[in-house]
Amino acid sequence: MTALPFPFPVVTWDDQEVVLIDQTLLPERIAWRRCGNITSLCQAICELAVRGAPAIGVAAGFGLVLSWRLAMEKNNQLADILARFQKDRKQLAATRPTAVNLFWALNRLGSLAEQLVDQGKPADEIAANLLAEARTVLDEDVAMCRSLGMHGQKLLPDFATVLTHCNAGGLATGGYGTAVGVVFAAKESGKTISVIADETRPLLQGARLTAWELQNQGIEVTVICDSAAASILRLGKVDAVITGADRIAANGDAANKIGTYPLAVLANRHGVPFYVAAPGSTFDAACATGDDITIELRDPNEVHEFHGRRATPEGVGGWNPAFDVTPNDLITAIITEHGVVRPPYGESLAKVWK
Amino acid sequence: MTALPFPFPVVTWDDQEVVLIDQTLLPERIAWRRCGNITSLCQAICELAVRGAPAIGVAAGFGLVLSWRLAMEKNNQLADILARFQKDRKQLAATRPTAVNLFWALNRLGSLAEQLVDQGKPADEIAANLLAEARTVLDEDVAMCRSLGMHGQKLLPDFATVLTHCNAGGLATGGYGTAVGVVFAAKESGKTISVIADETRPLLQGARLTAWELQNQGIEVTVICDSAAASILRLGKVDAVITGADRIAANGDAANKIGTYPLAVLANRHGVPFYVAAPGSTFDAACATGDDITIELRDPNEVHEFHGRRATPEGVGGWNPAFDVTPNDLITAIITEHGVVRPPYGESLAKVWK
Repeated sequence: MTALPFPFPVVTWDDQEVVLIDQTLLPERIAWRRCGNITSLCQAICELAVRGAPAIGVAAGFGLVLSWRLAMEKNNQLADILARFQKDRKQLAATRPTAVNLFWALNRLGSLAEQLVDQGKPADEIAANLLAEARTVLDEDVAMCRSLGMHGQKLLPDFATVLTHCNAGGLATGGYGTAVGVVFAAKESGKTISVIADETRPLLQGARLTAWELQNQGIEVTVICDSAAASILRLGKVDAVITGADRIAANGDAANKIGTYPLAVLANRHGVPFYVAAPGSTFDAACATGDDITIELRDPNEVHEFHGRRATPEGVGGWNPAFDVTPNDLITAIITEHGVVRPPYGESLAKVWK
Repeated sequence: MTALPFPFPVVTWDDQEVVLIDQTLLPERIAWRRCGNITSLCQAICELAVRGAPAIGVAAGFGLVLSWRLAMEKNNQLADILARFQKDRKQLAATRPTAVNLFWALNRLGSLAEQLVDQGKPADEIAANLLAEARTVLDEDVAMCRSLGMHGQKLLPDFATVLTHCNAGGLATGGYGTAVGVVFAAKESGKTISVIADETRPLLQGARLTAWELQNQGIEVTVICDSAAASILRLGKVDAVITGADRIAANGDAANKIGTYPLAVLANRHGVPFYVAAPGSTFDAACATGDDITIELRDPNEVHEFHGRRATPEGVGGWNPAFDVTPNDLITAIITEHGVVRPPYGESLAKVWK
């Protein structure tokens, strides 16, 4: 297999185009998807060629750089360029309604452009500023994941087996990862880590993406069915469970991919530490507890089918919640970019993510 | 969809052939596989066209009827017919090395044939006796499942939602089922039952077979990913979890399809009764506890692939235990053909399955 540079070039800017690793084709092949206009970039986001909130944020940033440059080619007036840019910004915002980082990145580059237009800067200077800002969004994400990873890896012994669920890896971020980033950081620190990856039904991000990126970086990985995690925990073969989080409530309750909650219950039962690795951007102080987190119900066809082949009889029901909530008392520690945080989370999280 | 007769004609004898519902084709279509010689029947068992220990036992019984009749066509001497019959019996025994009911049925009909040969009965009389015995094996299985079902259904309220795992249904037995048989019996008793079926990775028996047979009998069924069971239990939407068992130790620890143990832990956490439905043939008094039950490790490609399409990168590891063991303290009751049995199982099981 082709070893990729690391951190993975999940989203890059190259020769006037946004370039993505096409995650819909992994692990069968590594292919780059080059987006030379906003419509093709929006399509890539909608089709999950790029997925994971931080990675989508980075893609949106470079998307606005692309937008500004294309607008410059077709317009001479700054006001006209800005009008076209704002239209593209709306189109990008409409791709994934729940990914917080998407709006955050669009606002960050959008505000910068508005400010520079107000100051009457020339269009090409604004273009250069936007590119620098998009690169900063990417660099900050990588730096944040690296920091999180270095804090987290201190929790692991020199030889350790880590169990993870879904893909909180390089592919979901600017290239380094959160939960899987802890594994990469442990390796960089000279530790020998092997990973058990839950396949993560229904969309198999563990089987497809986590397995791929660990193998690519030379880390031993074993894929299991989600329902076999209990058996491997019971056998005492796992030193730590580490997952990502999609949203963390003020009290530390954490929403993550469906299947995380039962994993936490089983880890707890078998005395295996259960860690959540997540940056401040996932913290939602407006949610007092996990009960305030709305669980997205996705198309039941994701359960009925895999890669277009149907498993269930036509006409039977399906229920497909995308996430579940792990209560704070099952979480041993939360690994953040500012350090490892312990209970009571109401106080400790407010301190690091103020 | 075609509503089939019930109990399902999983294995029947028709016009000199063993006729099976080809379960490899479900749920896409209902097709019968007609086996007119022993090699084709062995192939059907090996390919899982018929699966589930009781169903395999029934198939083996009719297989020996077929064997005797074919031997009669080619030989005149009783000794020659018996020699050919014993050869076929060995071939059938070699198909699935762990299905206890297979050997039990082969011995039952084999001994009968030997006895009648010793008595010097005519070959066609022996053929008639073997057919009657094979039909008795089937009828006894259906009667046993019916009895188990009627005992079990008393545990359910008039309107109930039952969660089940894998396929302990009509298709795994002579046509009525054990865990799913409880649901059929509840329906026959006028109760309104809906079922949540775990899809049951890696081989999807829940998505493919349990969903199919419930739909075929007009029972509402909703398929979920195995990892979503915890969420639906937590929501309080499940009145009872009922699973089958592959082997039950003397102390009540029960081995069943991988994913049963975490389900029992979660049911327990959320105060939902967890029932195991199983006949005496699954009881293994030689195993003091679940620790004595060997867990079969199957081909990791079952994990790497989903419904025939590979999900993981080539070269990554996989771990594929076929079963796990649920400790007796998580089992609310064991539903048997002789009644519902409660803890302490060491005493109560020995009493019903002496």
